[in-house]
Amino acid sequence: MQGASGVSMQVMVGRNDGAPSFAIRHFIVEPGGHTPRHNHPYEHEVYIVSGTLAVACGESFEQVSAGDVLLVPSGAVHQFTNQSDTPARFLCAVPLESDCGRDVPGS
Amino acid sequence: MQGASGVSMQVMVGRNDGAPSFAIRHFIVEPGGHTPRHNHPYEHEVYIVSGTLAVACGESFEQVSAGDVLLVPSGAVHQFTNQSDTPARFLCAVPLESDCGRDVPGS
Repeated sequence: MQGASGVSMQVMVGRNDGAPSFAIRHFIVEPGGHTPRHNHPYEHEVYIVSGTLAVACGESFEQVSAGDVLLVPSGAVHQFTNQSDTPARFLCAVPLESDCGRDVPGS
Repeated sequence: MQGASGVSMQVMVGRNDGAPSFAIRHFIVEPGGHTPRHNHPYEHEVYIVSGTLAVACGESFEQVSAGDVLLVPSGAVHQFTNQSDTPARFLCAVPLESDCGRDVPGS
């Protein structure tokens, strides 16, 4: 697994706020930064707030930018990379639990 | 229940896209428009994309603007009103099911 670089994350609404079923987190990816290349047994629903990101997800590669939404299915290997010269921001929503009731990290 | 006025909604990621547990919808509220004053047995997680909205939720009233996030708890009476002279846009995420497995409308 390739780790994260140049990424910061903040939980905006999650279990500590009383959210009962899913959480919304806010990510900033600096120029040249990337999220981990990984997969896990729960989905992401992603909304691009600003900037442009290259997204690898399963067999697909695409560029996404502000206003775009994407679904990363459970199990799909995925990575977000900022190949631009400005920071990119996105929301990433996750269920609170997966995998027979285990807490989702960062939810 | 006071109905909606000057509001349009689009499901950005939902059950028809293969989302397994929650949906993200995009709302536009025109100047002077408002969402219904209502409640329901599931939560909202809301992210303000642009503009300013007056939010009534339970006993609280507040102004929210771009970048703000709020949790509308299950059961709380709530309404979003655009008292400004420009359109406001927000994301509203909901679980796909509530109330013993019933489909959430617009998910």
